[in-house]
Amino acid sequence: MRTKTPSDSLTVMTEIVLPNDTNNLNNLFGGQLLSWMDRCAAIAAHRHCRRQVVTASVNNVSFNHAVPQGSIVTLEASVSRAFTSSMEVFVDVYIEDQRSGSRITANEAIYTFVAVDQLGNPIEVPGIEPESETEKIRFEGALRRKQLALILGGKMKPEDAHELKKIFFPEEN
Amino acid sequence: MRTKTPSDSLTVMTEIVLPNDTNNLNNLFGGQLLSWMDRCAAIAAHRHCRRQVVTASVNNVSFNHAVPQGSIVTLEASVSRAFTSSMEVFVDVYIEDQRSGSRITANEAIYTFVAVDQLGNPIEVPGIEPESETEKIRFEGALRRKQLALILGGKMKPEDAHELKKIFFPEEN
Amino acid sequence: MRTKTPSDSLTVMTEIVLPNDTNNLNNLFGGQLLSWMDRCAAIAAHRHCRRQVVTASVNNVSFNHAVPQGSIVTLEASVSRAFTSSMEVFVDVYIEDQRSGSRITANEAIYTFVAVDQLGNPIEVPGIEPESETEKIRFEGALRRKQLALILGGKMKPEDAHELKKIFFPEEN
Amino acid sequence: MRTKTPSDSLTVMTEIVLPNDTNNLNNLFGGQLLSWMDRCAAIAAHRHCRRQVVTASVNNVSFNHAVPQGSIVTLEASVSRAFTSSMEVFVDVYIEDQRSGSRITANEAIYTFVAVDQLGNPIEVPGIEPESETEKIRFEGALRRKQLALILGGKMKPEDAHELKKIFFPEEN
Amino acid sequence: MRTKTPSDSLTVMTEIVLPNDTNNLNNLFGGQLLSWMDRCAAIAAHRHCRRQVVTASVNNVSFNHAVPQGSIVTLEASVSRAFTSSMEVFVDVYIEDQRSGSRITANEAIYTFVAVDQLGNPIEVPGIEPESETEKIRFEGALRRKQLALILGGKMKPEDAHELKKIFFPEEN
Amino acid sequence: MRTKTPSDSLTVMTEIVLPNDTNNLNNLFGGQLLSWMDRCAAIAAHRHCRRQVVTASVNNVSFNHAVPQGSIVTLEASVSRAFTSSMEVFVDVYIEDQRSGSRITANEAIYTFVAVDQLGNPIEVPGIEPESETEKIRFEGALRRKQLALILGGKMKPEDAHELKKIFFPEEN
Repeated sequence: MRTKTPSDSLTVMTEIVLPNDTNNLNNLFGGQLLSWMDRCAAIAAHRHCRRQVVTASVNNVSFNHAVPQGSIVTLEASVSRAFTSSMEVFVDVYIEDQRSGSRITANEAIYTFVAVDQLGNPIEVPGIEPESETEKIRFEGALRRKQLALILGGKMKPEDAHELKKIFFPEEN
Repeated sequence: MRTKTPSDSLTVMTEIVLPNDTNNLNNLFGGQLLSWMDRCAAIAAHRHCRRQVVTASVNNVSFNHAVPQGSIVTLEASVSRAFTSSMEVFVDVYIEDQRSGSRITANEAIYTFVAVDQLGNPIEVPGIEPESETEKIRFEGALRRKQLALILGGKMKPEDAHELKKIFFPEEN
Repeated sequence: MRTKTPSDSLTVMTEIVLPNDTNNLNNLFGGQLLSWMDRCAAIAAHRHCRRQVVTASVNNVSFNHAVPQGSIVTLEASVSRAFTSSMEVFVDVYIEDQRSGSRITANEAIYTFVAVDQLGNPIEVPGIEPESETEKIRFEGALRRKQLALILGGKMKPEDAHELKKIFFPEEN
Repeated sequence: MRTKTPSDSLTVMTEIVLPNDTNNLNNLFGGQLLSWMDRCAAIAAHRHCRRQVVTASVNNVSFNHAVPQGSIVTLEASVSRAFTSSMEVFVDVYIEDQRSGSRITANEAIYTFVAVDQLGNPIEVPGIEPESETEKIRFEGALRRKQLALILGGKMKPEDAHELKKIFFPEEN
Repeated sequence: MRTKTPSDSLTVMTEIVLPNDTNNLNNLFGGQLLSWMDRCAAIAAHRHCRRQVVTASVNNVSFNHAVPQGSIVTLEASVSRAFTSSMEVFVDVYIEDQRSGSRITANEAIYTFVAVDQLGNPIEVPGIEPESETEKIRFEGALRRKQLALILGGKMKPEDAHELKKIFFPEEN
Repeated sequence: MRTKTPSDSLTVMTEIVLPNDTNNLNNLFGGQLLSWMDRCAAIAAHRHCRRQVVTASVNNVSFNHAVPQGSIVTLEASVSRAFTSSMEVFVDVYIEDQRSGSRITANEAIYTFVAVDQLGNPIEVPGIEPESETEKIRFEGALRRKQLALILGGKMKPEDAHELKKIFFPEEN
């Protein structure tokens, strides 16, 4: 199975924030953005493996910027690392200033998808070869995030999470 | 400001999985469920503080059960703990068997909301007094989850996260 | 076939009134509320009989309170009485004050559903055993409402509608 | 205020039944049809009085024909009678055979609307002058239906409902 | 195959412009109107041939009037001419003044549909017999528009487009 | 006002064809695609001029490929030429093979937008400097298409449409 790069799966979506997408402050609902990010990330995962994919988990997502009604929102997703049948996908969300067009990062999220066959059973996916500096940093961090999820889900003992322990005891590693 | 219980903010939503909510395996899209959970959790946070609330973050969400088209999905959300102006909300998602009616837990998610005034500035919210055993466990864990989010976001040093370190060194605490 | 209580089929839905749900006065469209009530009532009917159900009729529904945009609307439905293959379902609609949280009854509606098999033919459903005072009153009134529907539909002669005649000649019965 | 005819307010809507509009038997949800009927009837009421209108009540609606996915549904609404500030509107629903094009009546419903000013207060509407035979029958029946609604709502004593009593004692009137 | 008239396929749709249908000036999005016109025209084409139809092309559509939020929009579509398996459909779009009810033409569009069998292959449709003056003018122009589309699509040589050349050299024809 | 290139306004949208977007052959409705193209083209026009834009017209659009349910549809729009206050926008629509990922052009459409101020009055927009070969061809053709639209709309005499006449009499020009 041929290794792929993150840019092989790059998926771009552009959305406009309509009245029904907003709360009483006229800013985008978090839930609507979560739904757009999942759709964008799912297409990126599909483009990586060309098989049906299902959302396995959503990792810590922070909403840092309010997104006002009428905003043009651009989402860019690509696979950051693959593990057997699962794929970690980064989604970067940008909004652009109506007049100047300069864009800012409004949000960043990490989703995990699993490739499945027609019966819903997991199947193997290609590996990832990161290219840019950002892609390499995200590739490195993926293992640590995977261990954290396993511990929080009670499926790994903390002492076995070697990557994760580096956060707490950088000098020991 | 009077302390409240988690059941003061209990919010129940019932949804049916329609064709447009499903992927090619005829199961519910993860993104649609994320959006429903956000809406349900936001109402619970609003009921706790009776002010406008905005989604601040979404913590580790795992999708453990495929939810087939036509399923009746019940969401139950309530505030598990409050910190100054932020509220942690647990969402439990159940699906029920079409014929027997027995229900299973399909999913569990944790959202964080912030109460804001009409200008979008954070404002104080009431504290939480947990009652049931489950409510107490969730209340206890909230601090640890908050520290983890701060570390991952680069806003706290790992050595200061006393609660979180208990996961790795339970004997030292 | 085991008899059930109204609370066995209790179904709760919570909705927020979004911009697209409102008229030029920024209040909820009647048609949107009718659609939500039908969905909530259909789930209650399904929970009573655990079979596919179809809407048979909608009885007198009155819209007593305007429901402003942004309102949190709670719907509660349960089966009030069952006749062979049909079920009468009451839907109570509440809106809550944004700040105080006190809730008022905005509406009450009565729907009738029929349980059907995969070919669409009517099938028998369990009976109802009312428990609370309100449930008993609704159970009693169901027969009168059924006779009224049959007369208006030309399927029963007025002189045979014994229950209904009590409205006009309480002293004779 | 000039009297109008039912055809002055005639409103025609054509809809296609899409997958999201259907239940597990692939037939149109009752709630979706109720919503379309309300929208069509509201436009008819608006065309009669040229003011903002709000749904006041929905009278006995029977669903006589299953409407399969893909069906072309035609709704025709017009005001049958006006009382001070309220208007009774009949909605006839037709579906047509895909191949032959012959159409059948799938449903008939009666809605009541009230005309309101910008503050939501009731305002007077023009009267109705029925023309066709069907329009005359519907005009005549409107008073009886109004009395029935008042009695069921506890706002009129049965002995004062002269029109309605004709149903039970035709010989006395 | 029996010839039909344009009025045999007349299709009327009535829509209200909701908040989600509008741009920042609170006027109807062009794309929403294009979608409504396609749906209305497709039903007209289906009514002409009583077979499945697919959109083949959209001809020059001009948006002449802004349509404000809350407007009642009426669309009327009918087949203007048929060529073997394709049908040209005119869609007239009207908006009416909220108070006076007087209506103006907001738009006019021309769509072309093809009738297909269950495998998607083109099948023959009935011819058109225009009746009114407007119908005759539209019938005459259809051939010229068809030639223009063929030339622009590179499927016909300009010198063979006899009908179209009349626009440029009316004296020669 | 600084001239811009077509790539300055490039807008990419990715959509999945859901059940509600399809006809009885399970292929994408033309009207849904028209709506997506309009939205994508409107954002491109907005990015060119950074002002509010409204759809002015849609030119000949041909639907060459059926787009099956579940397809990933990518739309790419950019401004091809600007005239005072109007902008011609090309939209290229691609679908990709589920397994191989190879993509084909499913459609091409041309929309025209006008930039307006807050009162809806036209305002000037920057000019276009085409770069690639395709951009130059589209830039050249824009004038011819504009003349054609003016003639068909009765706003230009055929003999004054010098660019357009080149189609019919290439030797004379």
